[in-house]
Amino acid sequence: MTGAPSTRLPARSGGWVEGDPVGDRRFADVGPLQLERGGSLPAVRVAYETWGTPGDPAVLVEHALTGDSHVVGPTGPGQPTPGWWDGLIGDGAPLAGTFVVCANVLGGCQGTTGPSSAAPDGRPWGSRFPEITIADQVEVEARLAAALGVDRWAAVIGGSMGGMRALEWAVSRPDQVARLFFLASGAVATADQIGTQTTQQVAVTSDPRWAGGDYAAGEGPVAGLGTARRIAHLTYRSAFELETRFGHDVQDDGRFAVASYLEHHATKLARRFDAGSYVLLTQAMNTWDVGRGRGGVEAALARVTAHCLVAGIDTDRLYRIEEQQRVADALGVPLRVVRSPYGHDGFLVEVAAVGALVRELLAAPDQGGHLTPG
Amino acid sequence: MTGAPSTRLPARSGGWVEGDPVGDRRFADVGPLQLERGGSLPAVRVAYETWGTPGDPAVLVEHALTGDSHVVGPTGPGQPTPGWWDGLIGDGAPLAGTFVVCANVLGGCQGTTGPSSAAPDGRPWGSRFPEITIADQVEVEARLAAALGVDRWAAVIGGSMGGMRALEWAVSRPDQVARLFFLASGAVATADQIGTQTTQQVAVTSDPRWAGGDYAAGEGPVAGLGTARRIAHLTYRSAFELETRFGHDVQDDGRFAVASYLEHHATKLARRFDAGSYVLLTQAMNTWDVGRGRGGVEAALARVTAHCLVAGIDTDRLYRIEEQQRVADALGVPLRVVRSPYGHDGFLVEVAAVGALVRELLAAPDQGGHLTPG
Repeated sequence: MTGAPSTRLPARSGGWVEGDPVGDRRFADVGPLQLERGGSLPAVRVAYETWGTPGDPAVLVEHALTGDSHVVGPTGPGQPTPGWWDGLIGDGAPLAGTFVVCANVLGGCQGTTGPSSAAPDGRPWGSRFPEITIADQVEVEARLAAALGVDRWAAVIGGSMGGMRALEWAVSRPDQVARLFFLASGAVATADQIGTQTTQQVAVTSDPRWAGGDYAAGEGPVAGLGTARRIAHLTYRSAFELETRFGHDVQDDGRFAVASYLEHHATKLARRFDAGSYVLLTQAMNTWDVGRGRGGVEAALARVTAHCLVAGIDTDRLYRIEEQQRVADALGVPLRVVRSPYGHDGFLVEVAAVGALVRELLAAPDQGGHLTPG
Repeated sequence: MTGAPSTRLPARSGGWVEGDPVGDRRFADVGPLQLERGGSLPAVRVAYETWGTPGDPAVLVEHALTGDSHVVGPTGPGQPTPGWWDGLIGDGAPLAGTFVVCANVLGGCQGTTGPSSAAPDGRPWGSRFPEITIADQVEVEARLAAALGVDRWAAVIGGSMGGMRALEWAVSRPDQVARLFFLASGAVATADQIGTQTTQQVAVTSDPRWAGGDYAAGEGPVAGLGTARRIAHLTYRSAFELETRFGHDVQDDGRFAVASYLEHHATKLARRFDAGSYVLLTQAMNTWDVGRGRGGVEAALARVTAHCLVAGIDTDRLYRIEEQQRVADALGVPLRVVRSPYGHDGFLVEVAAVGALVRELLAAPDQGGHLTPG
């Protein structure tokens, strides 16, 4: 089930490709996949990392759009970024004593099958990669859970796009989710989110180097992806925080400090992320609607049996607090509001407040399950 | 002083160029101009429109980023858009009984000298056009006022980028402004505004068809300008309004309704606007700081002697109400809040509420002036 990396692909992107150093990744081959939108994949490989001891209560951590399986830890060979949720795992950390699993998402570019992976003909999937949904991503994670012998998660936790997968888990497989942490996300993509995400897609795909999604090695749409990141990054932070940090400041080189800051993030992302994954995953977020085929959001959420904790960031202008309120109301739990100047990114930055909520969630009894935890 | 259009330029842009039908435009040549940032222009021509009778109290209406001198009226030859503030001028309208002037802004693309105008060598200025500021734009308007025989404006009114020029008028030439209407704007560009505007500039200038600003006729960066408009348009509307109008709706062609809506606005702007003007004018907005060289915002605003009305839109996420509050506080007047679901664009959409404020302003006595009104 767990396979070794095979032939090295031409590095068409800033993402990880087979042949690169694996870092802390492990791999599981989870078979062919029929997709919700009608397409299919003949073979899916999942890159994942684990922390702790198998057999301890298992926790699934779900990463956001540009995250990956590297929840905590330093950079290193094959590991372009440090942990994106450092402080959550380790001695004395909120997830201490659990067996933590985090998988790179289906369609991603850090080891799980995605547009930059090899298709059966040995060439990158590129434009041939089929459209996927959040539900498809969760199906892949469910197969990974089975491969790891996890029948029931003590908790599934995620923010932003990770919150979507966490919620989809709790709705589609209630028996397998004892606790749910839904953070800074929504139950259905809003027009505002679809608007900004399609604009980001246009920025990428109108770059001539996009080449219809089939750009060659080292020739991807770096400029377009950089523009997309700038657009996105502004939605991730609050106007207040940007004003406090940068105001109207001009650097010695004559550029505005905030423009330089955005360029820094644009360049960083374009180096480490595949543009094809970016377009594919933002489309999965665009089509996200937990209520699709289930009689609507509220009917879908009625299926959840997990102990739930729903939280949002007060200054989040991308996943506004009303969206978490709707989910909390439907689940019959109080909404927890994290106060932060950082906007949406507060879900990553406010480690102490978010960690305290994770501790509280894990301390709650497992009330629902007829299977043994972990 | 008023010149006829001269030789026709190759239409390098979606903007108006000499040789196109003039529509309702008139022209004034206002001479050479030394610019705040150090550059200069050997000759500036201003395109403007007027309504009402010269000699009646004169009102200067200031247009926003992509507006022009056509405040009200239908489309027609040379007039690509209908009036952007229809309802403000005409029988029984708030500005009835006044002599209304509106000029296309310096650096624009609807008849006033800008990057798509002919330089002395007969070719478009393009990348050679010097950097300009809001104060430069007001200097051009002051020369137009002199040419029209207007010594003192009964009112200067503007929203968004137009609000910046209105405020600059009241600060730099207090004796010439009896009343000021400052709407949905700020006294200094915020980091958030600079962030989104520089991102829009990157979208335009990273389009290979930008060609360093010297694109040829009919070969401008249409895609990049379209992306810029999508980014901007989302900041102009509220998340609530987008959600109410479009939600998660998918059209028959499979596209999200909100994406189709944004594309419509992107295409429309790219057809009628010059990319060079877009980059130049957003840079003038980036460098906007009414307090520059004046000891800061509050010290600058202390120079104002006009009767002031300061208003904002409660749902504006680009020029947030705190910015208008700061200006109102510095001017010692109460902030007027227009309630609207439309966000920033409420300043154009809420014609009844805004018109009532204009009427109220004009009814106030002219207290300050030692010159005769209008």
